[in-house]
Amino acid sequence: MASDQQLSTKHVLGIKYLTAADVELILDTALQFKEVINRPIKKVPSLRDTTVANLFFENSTRTRISFELAEKRLSADTVNFSAASSSVKKGETLLDTVNNILAMKVDMVVMRHPAPGAHHFLASKIDASIVNAGDGTHEHPTQALLDAYSMRDALGGDLRGKKICIFGDITHSRVALSNVFCLQKLGAKVRVCGPPTLIPKHMRSLGVEVSYNVDESLAWCDVANVLRIQLERQDTKFIPSLREYNRHFGITRERVDRLDKPVVIMHPGPINRGVEIDTAVADSEHSIILEQVENGVAVRMAVLYLLAARRKEG
Amino acid sequence: MASDQQLSTKHVLGIKYLTAADVELILDTALQFKEVINRPIKKVPSLRDTTVANLFFENSTRTRISFELAEKRLSADTVNFSAASSSVKKGETLLDTVNNILAMKVDMVVMRHPAPGAHHFLASKIDASIVNAGDGTHEHPTQALLDAYSMRDALGGDLRGKKICIFGDITHSRVALSNVFCLQKLGAKVRVCGPPTLIPKHMRSLGVEVSYNVDESLAWCDVANVLRIQLERQDTKFIPSLREYNRHFGITRERVDRLDKPVVIMHPGPINRGVEIDTAVADSEHSIILEQVENGVAVRMAVLYLLAARRKEG
Amino acid sequence: MASDQQLSTKHVLGIKYLTAADVELILDTALQFKEVINRPIKKVPSLRDTTVANLFFENSTRTRISFELAEKRLSADTVNFSAASSSVKKGETLLDTVNNILAMKVDMVVMRHPAPGAHHFLASKIDASIVNAGDGTHEHPTQALLDAYSMRDALGGDLRGKKICIFGDITHSRVALSNVFCLQKLGAKVRVCGPPTLIPKHMRSLGVEVSYNVDESLAWCDVANVLRIQLERQDTKFIPSLREYNRHFGITRERVDRLDKPVVIMHPGPINRGVEIDTAVADSEHSIILEQVENGVAVRMAVLYLLAARRKEG
Repeated sequence: MASDQQLSTKHVLGIKYLTAADVELILDTALQFKEVINRPIKKVPSLRDTTVANLFFENSTRTRISFELAEKRLSADTVNFSAASSSVKKGETLLDTVNNILAMKVDMVVMRHPAPGAHHFLASKIDASIVNAGDGTHEHPTQALLDAYSMRDALGGDLRGKKICIFGDITHSRVALSNVFCLQKLGAKVRVCGPPTLIPKHMRSLGVEVSYNVDESLAWCDVANVLRIQLERQDTKFIPSLREYNRHFGITRERVDRLDKPVVIMHPGPINRGVEIDTAVADSEHSIILEQVENGVAVRMAVLYLLAARRKEG
Repeated sequence: MASDQQLSTKHVLGIKYLTAADVELILDTALQFKEVINRPIKKVPSLRDTTVANLFFENSTRTRISFELAEKRLSADTVNFSAASSSVKKGETLLDTVNNILAMKVDMVVMRHPAPGAHHFLASKIDASIVNAGDGTHEHPTQALLDAYSMRDALGGDLRGKKICIFGDITHSRVALSNVFCLQKLGAKVRVCGPPTLIPKHMRSLGVEVSYNVDESLAWCDVANVLRIQLERQDTKFIPSLREYNRHFGITRERVDRLDKPVVIMHPGPINRGVEIDTAVADSEHSIILEQVENGVAVRMAVLYLLAARRKEG
Repeated sequence: MASDQQLSTKHVLGIKYLTAADVELILDTALQFKEVINRPIKKVPSLRDTTVANLFFENSTRTRISFELAEKRLSADTVNFSAASSSVKKGETLLDTVNNILAMKVDMVVMRHPAPGAHHFLASKIDASIVNAGDGTHEHPTQALLDAYSMRDALGGDLRGKKICIFGDITHSRVALSNVFCLQKLGAKVRVCGPPTLIPKHMRSLGVEVSYNVDESLAWCDVANVLRIQLERQDTKFIPSLREYNRHFGITRERVDRLDKPVVIMHPGPINRGVEIDTAVADSEHSIILEQVENGVAVRMAVLYLLAARRKEG
């Protein structure tokens, strides 16, 4: 797993702050870890001298489990902290909470926090490397990296010139922004498509195409990355009803059947079947939804491995 | 721990689906693991290439801890998932939740789920081996196996012709049904005894004796397996009051003192002292309640070990 | 890590029950573990034959994480139990709950429990060694040991004749009493200082000086151990308002700036910044608050190591 390259940064706070070379390095390293987790013994000793704290100030079962498995397969020691049962409720500041955990000789922090600024604030104050595991509706860099990895895998290794459309609720998704940054760094053409009420105004200024026409966008793209309708994050005023959402903006079997070419189907989960995507599409041969999950462990192993390697280099 | 025998099934969904030979194989294998957990170093490397997901859609501290210790002592990697803090609340289907976890390269699933059909449904859909850790009021196979192990240990190794009576709330217990199936496969005579309102109608059709007379049943049996009054599962209409339950159906010191022979006392816990069983009985020299707990770890190690061995054989 | 000395007791229930030699032995052993956790590989195999159960009947993120890291760095196997998701709610007795866990071959119990008598009760009933991780407002021995370790470190190794003042809410703190016992065994002079409503009557009978004058006490002491205002444990009648508490009893920047000598500043956390202590004081060069946290892992490793060594000796 040796490599003479290293990341340009000691944290992974967002795709925005990674260079294109960083992204390539992570994806190439993940290729090797994907081999590791498909061996009978799915473990390497790389991080046995490293303690990782998983700090989840918001619940996220799947992301937490994916990071935990990545850490265990790298032989790291881990400590888990969730806000629900913590001193956060006792009025302690975030910095005090994190400093306390770091004082116990923790080398890396994987943190999900609802405030987009929390990770940057910490990065300016502490010595440990920080991996952003999702921050409100802003960035979720490891999701974007595993999405890019999965697209490269599905499309033959190079995303330059490939057409990727992100469908659905762009406004309330932290996946969308990280995807846009990541895909652009890899040379892909990026479009977002959804109801006007769920697409933020600044999308065009990021160099992203905006469309409100699902059929036309499906016909345009090589990959459809379908986002979850975040029922828990939004006011019902944005969408008339789930049934109407499905009819007007859902990736339905009828829409996909009308296409004259295959489109790779992706979804970060959890899926609302029958809302943003039909079951027949989610489970079709062109869907790589479960591959995304598998690749997530490999990509997170790569991120943790590269950050640890950089720390050791000094 | 090598053995040329293997289980007839890739899952342990219920005792109903195990052959008598399967049950014998599990209990014999557990004998060896009982030795392991009584050594200074209570660990074997058998499952170091195996990742086990513990999925608890209902709380169960003691069963979860017992499985976790069994997994650790087999050197398996584990991931824990509990419904309380999970994406289940976000409207994801059970199959999507489990498939997501399995996509992270999980080999076995230990699952407690309130719906009796959940384990079978999953078994028809996924490749991983499933161990049922309790399903509503239906089956709890590893409890029945540890009970059988403990009875064999207390009665000298063979249950053929032995008289076992299960006392108490048969209707709301998942332990009762698994016990019946398991004990019958091992050749024991099985009776249930409790208030008519707490004994389901189909018991006799399973070949089980039914009695409403606690004193006569205690005099009959070699082993009294006393079930918990599941206060949290039942309407108060089934029992008049806890004090009256104790007087009419409890395994009291007076009842046991009147017997002219020893009866082995068992209880799956947690105990309601002074309700279904008196403290003096629960703590008496004939009680093997804590041995049951110890044997539970050995039996679960055996189940996981045999399922893993079968997977490796193909 | 070999030593020919051993603890006089098989449990650490409170500082009250340790001899001065026990305290010295723990602190000296912790010195060696502090070296271990500052090495690249922060782990020793000392407890790889030991299973530790962490039983938290009250939430305490920082204490739990500190013990967990101590256990992992000693290579112990661990099981975690928290009351929130447990059979305690099903009406089981404490002894039954603990006996169940111990029956799974657990060698040591780390327990936080709101009832001061719970640890002693258990110690009289079970074979495993018990470490008190906090009991209501009574004792918290490992906190007192890590405080003493940190004071020795800051003051040059010997606390005899040193002046230590504990500031704040003495009544509702389990740290205060353990600190008093520990510091007295090490030969220090101990004073408590706070509002009269928050200092219990029996303090003087323990040989502790009592003061209500913060400025005079700061001028007197070598070390100020500032306790948290336990907002969640007290009636507002004890303190007029947080702002007034800060003005009259807080360790403020102004008060510290007026001193003509340095005072070592300590706090067990979590800190209420601007209430019992000002941010400028908590983060000043004389503060050893984060060292306390780091030392906590080393001290807990020492306690677990010495108890395990004593068990092996018989």
